[in-house]
Amino acid sequence: MRDALVAAAFQLFLERGYEQTTVDDIVNLAGVGRRSFFRYFPSKEDVVFPDHERCLADMTAFLADSEADAEPVARVCDAARLVLSMYAENPSFSVQRYRLTKKVPGLRAYELSVVWRYERALAAYLRGRFAGRSDGSLRADVIASAVVAAHNNALRSWLRSDGQGDASATVDHALRYVQAAFGAPAPPSSPAPAAAGQPVGAEDSEDAEDAEDVVVVVSRRGAPLWRVVQEIETALGRH
Amino acid sequence: MRDALVAAAFQLFLERGYEQTTVDDIVNLAGVGRRSFFRYFPSKEDVVFPDHERCLADMTAFLADSEADAEPVARVCDAARLVLSMYAENPSFSVQRYRLTKKVPGLRAYELSVVWRYERALAAYLRGRFAGRSDGSLRADVIASAVVAAHNNALRSWLRSDGQGDASATVDHALRYVQAAFGAPAPPSSPAPAAAGQPVGAEDSEDAEDAEDVVVVVSRRGAPLWRVVQEIETALGRH
Repeated sequence: MRDALVAAAFQLFLERGYEQTTVDDIVNLAGVGRRSFFRYFPSKEDVVFPDHERCLADMTAFLADSEADAEPVARVCDAARLVLSMYAENPSFSVQRYRLTKKVPGLRAYELSVVWRYERALAAYLRGRFAGRSDGSLRADVIASAVVAAHNNALRSWLRSDGQGDASATVDHALRYVQAAFGAPAPPSSPAPAAAGQPVGAEDSEDAEDAEDVVVVVSRRGAPLWRVVQEIETALGRH
Repeated sequence: MRDALVAAAFQLFLERGYEQTTVDDIVNLAGVGRRSFFRYFPSKEDVVFPDHERCLADMTAFLADSEADAEPVARVCDAARLVLSMYAENPSFSVQRYRLTKKVPGLRAYELSVVWRYERALAAYLRGRFAGRSDGSLRADVIASAVVAAHNNALRSWLRSDGQGDASATVDHALRYVQAAFGAPAPPSSPAPAAAGQPVGAEDSEDAEDAEDVVVVVSRRGAPLWRVVQEIETALGRH
């Protein structure tokens, strides 16, 4: 019934346009009553995004189910991948909806509010993990926002290509950029990995009484900062 | 006239609530006609955010007016500060509006769409600056989003404190976090600053034939990554 309503709605949206389609049109085509429609969807906008509520619930449950020592940035990246999976489950439907949403301002506003809810779910998890750290809420908000922006940049690029290509690889690449910038240090209890990169040793440093405690990274002055960060992460054994 | 309409609207919103106030109520209190209201504001929602259109226009002009070699991340941070200035111009009005917006879902949706427009303005500038770079659009979207999130985290913290404290300092601190993660290298033509931090020199590195070209940063293994990045930026003279 629910799937039939979504199918009928999209058939009409594509044939005559979103604004020109009423809920009555949709239920007539699906052969059900108005009350059935509103049992599944609070409004006409909701039928355009039938799976976001489930996906938001899945994301919240996924984050609540995290190991206490999970690396928080990697964890929210994995949570964001749940959204991608929802889109990738049905590429042709996702591409149709993308085109529709671009044309209808009301649907873009709806989409912004959905994106905001995903972002708040990620930020809430990160705030919990960063509680007590200086700038914990700032870090949580910025990282959640960066993860969502990277995910959506990759998702849109996949949708613009009509759902061709490897959506997962595109999103993985985008999320790696965020992880390189914000990936957190490994917990102090983990075994110290050998420093990689260009270790040159360290001496006579106030902050580093023990050479085991020190990582030295050498970089060209002109290197992009994210590459430097990636080097540091590699050196610290975070990848 | 415009200011009188805003003042009348907020007096009524606070007295009887946003939903319970009509445009007729507002124009009656301000002593003007309905047409005057709609000449300034397309809808009742717009009177709640009377300065965002001007601020968006200012931001777009500011970015269009950038030097060709301006450091792009610093530039979008400065553009974001224009939004802060608008809020800080009138703290009591900004705090009133913040409380109102938290209570009215329709206004939160409006605010999301405004935030999205600021973010797109920043991203459009960055996309131009990163054109031709690999991952240019990804970097632009992620950085724009991170700048907006940092700005808004600081702005909300200032609004929650009832507009007490130094809004600029709070936002500067938040934006420094984003600049530390994403700040681009200084242009090669700029004079090489002396490396700060914990310089220990570098030798025999394949990637660094010339010591002038090299920066060495020493960090405790347990240090938060953003602090390491800040150190690198300091060493590279980007602050």
